[in-house]
Amino acid sequence: MDELLERLRSGLPDEALISDPDVARSYDRDMAGFCEAGTPAAVVLPRTVDQVRHVMRTATALRVPVVPQGARTGLSGAANASDGCIVLSLTAMNRILEIDPVDRIAVVEPGVVNADLSRAAQQYGLTYPPDPSSWETCTIGGNIGTASGGLCCVKYGVTAEYVLGLTVVLADGRLLRTGRRTAKGVAGYDLTRLFVGSEGSLGIIVEAVLALKPKPPAPLVLAAEFPSAASACAAVCAVMEQGHTPSLLEIMDRTTLRAVNRLGSMGLPESTQALLLCAFDTPDPSADLAAVAALCEAAGATEVVPADTPAESELLLQARRMSLPALEALAPATMIDDVCVPRSRLGDMLDGTAAIAERHGLTIGVCAHAGDGNTHPVVCFDHRDADESRRARASFDEIMALGLELGGTITGEHGVGVLKKEWLATELGPVALEFQRGIRETFDPLGILNPGKLF
Amino acid sequence: MDELLERLRSGLPDEALISDPDVARSYDRDMAGFCEAGTPAAVVLPRTVDQVRHVMRTATALRVPVVPQGARTGLSGAANASDGCIVLSLTAMNRILEIDPVDRIAVVEPGVVNADLSRAAQQYGLTYPPDPSSWETCTIGGNIGTASGGLCCVKYGVTAEYVLGLTVVLADGRLLRTGRRTAKGVAGYDLTRLFVGSEGSLGIIVEAVLALKPKPPAPLVLAAEFPSAASACAAVCAVMEQGHTPSLLEIMDRTTLRAVNRLGSMGLPESTQALLLCAFDTPDPSADLAAVAALCEAAGATEVVPADTPAESELLLQARRMSLPALEALAPATMIDDVCVPRSRLGDMLDGTAAIAERHGLTIGVCAHAGDGNTHPVVCFDHRDADESRRARASFDEIMALGLELGGTITGEHGVGVLKKEWLATELGPVALEFQRGIRETFDPLGILNPGKLF
Repeated sequence: MDELLERLRSGLPDEALISDPDVARSYDRDMAGFCEAGTPAAVVLPRTVDQVRHVMRTATALRVPVVPQGARTGLSGAANASDGCIVLSLTAMNRILEIDPVDRIAVVEPGVVNADLSRAAQQYGLTYPPDPSSWETCTIGGNIGTASGGLCCVKYGVTAEYVLGLTVVLADGRLLRTGRRTAKGVAGYDLTRLFVGSEGSLGIIVEAVLALKPKPPAPLVLAAEFPSAASACAAVCAVMEQGHTPSLLEIMDRTTLRAVNRLGSMGLPESTQALLLCAFDTPDPSADLAAVAALCEAAGATEVVPADTPAESELLLQARRMSLPALEALAPATMIDDVCVPRSRLGDMLDGTAAIAERHGLTIGVCAHAGDGNTHPVVCFDHRDADESRRARASFDEIMALGLELGGTITGEHGVGVLKKEWLATELGPVALEFQRGIRETFDPLGILNPGKLF
Repeated sequence: MDELLERLRSGLPDEALISDPDVARSYDRDMAGFCEAGTPAAVVLPRTVDQVRHVMRTATALRVPVVPQGARTGLSGAANASDGCIVLSLTAMNRILEIDPVDRIAVVEPGVVNADLSRAAQQYGLTYPPDPSSWETCTIGGNIGTASGGLCCVKYGVTAEYVLGLTVVLADGRLLRTGRRTAKGVAGYDLTRLFVGSEGSLGIIVEAVLALKPKPPAPLVLAAEFPSAASACAAVCAVMEQGHTPSLLEIMDRTTLRAVNRLGSMGLPESTQALLLCAFDTPDPSADLAAVAALCEAAGATEVVPADTPAESELLLQARRMSLPALEALAPATMIDDVCVPRSRLGDMLDGTAAIAERHGLTIGVCAHAGDGNTHPVVCFDHRDADESRRARASFDEIMALGLELGGTITGEHGVGVLKKEWLATELGPVALEFQRGIRETFDPLGILNPGKLF
């Protein structure tokens, strides 16, 4: 242990190394529940690529596991420490190195906060679309590592689609450059994409070239109340089948609505079983909203409220933004799931989740990126109650089983981490898992990069 | 050899196996020039996944190389046979298995022709955007294998962005399923993306889940004549910097224009040094074209012609569609390059290519997917003239060197094949190449999948 700290210290400035056990322990986990975390031997906060290389050379020489971290807003335990590891926090490498409005790219260090990049891009009339809920705190490196999504994915896609090239420090400290800064390029296997969602298991991302998009007009939002989750999901299917391209298409179920009502007195009628929110950032959003309003009414909506101004739209979105805090206020602990199904099966997913909640006598509120079929069932429970914790975990697992049964995936945007390792193996099957392992061994033959995560 | 044919025959219907040497030889190459091709031992045209598995099991048992082929419209020799190989043509597996307008996906076999899928999707109000020039003949499997692009990429992106999941027969005949049929999903490393552009070196794609988009309105096109390539490129930069999203943004250089004039009497003034074509499929394309017209005039355009109708637009696009045949009519042989640079460097790329042509005393016409910075310099030469062939190859290489110098890539959308192997190594460098090789060995430890291609 002393040797580890000594070696680390030899290539790092004092402020980049935290060896005090109490402070180091505060870096032990991300925001996932149900997940174990160990005690790191050291926390390093490098500011340069060379410092990261020094850390990785040291880790390789001493065979010490390295756990890379961003803002630790992750929801699957992918950034949780293991005992005796080096926690490698990239948060201090937070410079935006370049924004080019002609090439529509940004070059950034991994610790740049998502919202900071968005704001910087806006000065050039551009935007960085991926918008995880934690966008005010989460980092680009963490977004890439977990392949994160967000509210606007239904129109603008996920993080993966915005990563053009990467600079990576490999397990042994060597430098790997992947991808490009051009709009297109097919030179060899797509190593860039391989790193997106790799949860720190293939290398340490120290720089990224990101695609930017022209900033769209401010969106207008519509809210529609439905007498059942099924009818709201039918409206979602109709909107997509009719060829609309909303920039946001969300559903909140009854449990979520009641929780939001309780927290914020939104005044939603208690008889409402599901709320659909739909936004357009098109040239004529009112016309698009009118078309969607008609589809909602045809699907059985009891009330349809289209906003006339961006300010009204913001108010309607408040309910969605309050969903997670409102559900968290219902119980001492919550666990958020992340099952994505074909959108045609969304109704079955919501009804099935409600049945699981009832069977286990638990409160499970669902908000969903409905346009993508990506549901976030939030299991509310008392972690001090062993039986309730057991039932919470069982329902969490049953939700994933249901998602797979409906042709979906166990994770639409939160990743695998330690939380869903067993389920990843189930979803992939033995052949795919064998090749996942093979790729990992190619990049990390000593097994020091975030071991115990993914598989 | 007899054993190979006998074993193949044991698991294939008669019509799926071609052993006649003359017929087999007709499958020896794709449409790339400069590329060697060997003589296949057999050509198989399976119709089922099980037949493909039988072929791969046989190839593994006998250690015989397998060269997968689609429509052989490729431009890098990736589908060229090697001596004694099995050519595995997927063209007979050409069924569209499913189109789902709610989930906006298609499930297809690899031999489906790109245009057939597009037409089938249109019946649901949908479109499959990737549109390589060969779209009337090329296959989806070939598109995925080479990660092909097209004219609409500037707005709609490349093939890679539309491949959600794959079924793959591995080198040893096992079946691998990758990806998903949901809009989002991050379960493990993105093996799907790894196969896109892998040129048959990792496995045989036997089924693909593809994303579809709502069919956009018919585009309107504008043509603008410029007194120099540099001024046309400046207009491209201005269009992109101002936040426009054209569905097509092409440049044809002077050499291409003259060739088109000669072939089709387009009546373009011979003083025109570059023609820019810009299309919008937005709700109000006339307004967008008017904005672009102003930017073109500010950049020095001598003539700007916006179309008022889709029919007029089609006429303007004719010149672009005729570019390649018109250049091919200039010389006994042509070789098409595929360098992609940051669009801010497009002017330097075009001027540099003209200088290379002049230095070598050759005709090189350039058409470019200008919005993406993806240039296609077409080197015209007489392949019966040894010195001219040498100069043609030298200029071809110098164009790639120039592309790399400008921060670009040696291939924007055509792939590597055998044509650009050495240049791939140059672009990637030794570290990236080591990991490319490592991945290949993971999937193909015996080295029987399209050996000699890529690297």
